[in-house]
Amino acid sequence: MNLRVVLVEPLYEGNVGSVARAMKNFGYRELALVNPCRIEDYGHAMASHARDVLQMSRSFATLAEALEGANLVVGTTGKRLEHEQHHLRLHLRVPCLTPAGLATKIRDKEGTVALLLGREDCGLKSDELSLCDMIVSIPTSESYPVMNLSHSAAVLFYELSRNGSTSCGHVQMATKESLDLLQEKAEDLLREIAYPQHKVDFALLMLRRILGRAELTEREARSLLGIVKRIRWRVGHGQQGSDQK
Amino acid sequence: MNLRVVLVEPLYEGNVGSVARAMKNFGYRELALVNPCRIEDYGHAMASHARDVLQMSRSFATLAEALEGANLVVGTTGKRLEHEQHHLRLHLRVPCLTPAGLATKIRDKEGTVALLLGREDCGLKSDELSLCDMIVSIPTSESYPVMNLSHSAAVLFYELSRNGSTSCGHVQMATKESLDLLQEKAEDLLREIAYPQHKVDFALLMLRRILGRAELTEREARSLLGIVKRIRWRVGHGQQGSDQK
Repeated sequence: MNLRVVLVEPLYEGNVGSVARAMKNFGYRELALVNPCRIEDYGHAMASHARDVLQMSRSFATLAEALEGANLVVGTTGKRLEHEQHHLRLHLRVPCLTPAGLATKIRDKEGTVALLLGREDCGLKSDELSLCDMIVSIPTSESYPVMNLSHSAAVLFYELSRNGSTSCGHVQMATKESLDLLQEKAEDLLREIAYPQHKVDFALLMLRRILGRAELTEREARSLLGIVKRIRWRVGHGQQGSDQK
Repeated sequence: MNLRVVLVEPLYEGNVGSVARAMKNFGYRELALVNPCRIEDYGHAMASHARDVLQMSRSFATLAEALEGANLVVGTTGKRLEHEQHHLRLHLRVPCLTPAGLATKIRDKEGTVALLLGREDCGLKSDELSLCDMIVSIPTSESYPVMNLSHSAAVLFYELSRNGSTSCGHVQMATKESLDLLQEKAEDLLREIAYPQHKVDFALLMLRRILGRAELTEREARSLLGIVKRIRWRVGHGQQGSDQK
């Protein structure tokens, strides 16, 4: 499993440098920055001996570009969101993993996992969270749940790099392309069965989360695509239509 | 178990403030400082909403005084010590716990555990480690094992405050009845779309596995049942059929 750390619009260069240092401490090297603050002397100083991670980092104008080639997209949220940001409740109604739960899910998988860390002041936005296959949250104290960005990062890297392996064998995870295709075909199907328009977005988000948590394999993704294809053919031709070749 | 965080001769006020913040994030409040640097505006700024932890902290001239009343003393070391500081080898020959190992050892115990974190540049000294009942070390990368002080602290607080749960928040998991009903309706659907008979058993098993791994919620199970019901109605009536009521 390759980890790509994606910082979405970080505000402070010191935090970017600190995250780079924590990455190198736990053996991670791929850093993507989406529309970041300027990173100058202080950011490099905070990176300490991980300046190479900063120097090899790539900057992108949009989150979509930063996610290219990732097999699985994991978003991070803090507890504060549950209370303060009503529009995010939709996302939080689905089960949210602890770092340990996430580590167990992605251990021994092959592919690239993009781990998204949001802005220091307001985290990830609703539309950014909707791109995520899984959501992870660090259990914190009710009285002060807002962690420093690089502290959250360090805790997540620590947990993901632990070698307490609990499963054996390697399985090829579904590619992002297959997962996206599955979403697309599912949307076509919902339209074709006249699923209520106001429920379609929720149904698609639910599907993404279910398949994300299930850590779909490529083989399973292809089987599901085959089933959806056949259902759509039947919906188009009716039950009495002649068999599909 | 009460945790007393003991910073031994910290050099930078920013780190002291950051440690205070991480403490409060995980519900810890007792901070002892041994012969610390001056803590002024920057230190308080880094503590953010944990200024109260800094204000309630106590400073001591010697480590012995800071340890008074503690039931157990735990020292922290980084990997670098193994190579660079020969005089510490004696201490490291004793089994050194991972953070998870330490958490297991002290979970459900009563009393005060003093957790010692050393200087940013050279950690804890030989005579300081000799006061420790246990040594804990965070597993890090060989290529850059030196963590930022507050990052180490955050990882340790995270691990010590864990309650063994792998998901956050409470979500009603799907009942066995709903999962079985979903399997049954999926089987009906596969038959209705004339899915090849020899593949039906495999498809149903795959579905069960995917939904099992996803740890489906009851709400999701009901949504999926609704979707399957509508698909089956459409398959029965064709795409041009009148809408279902």
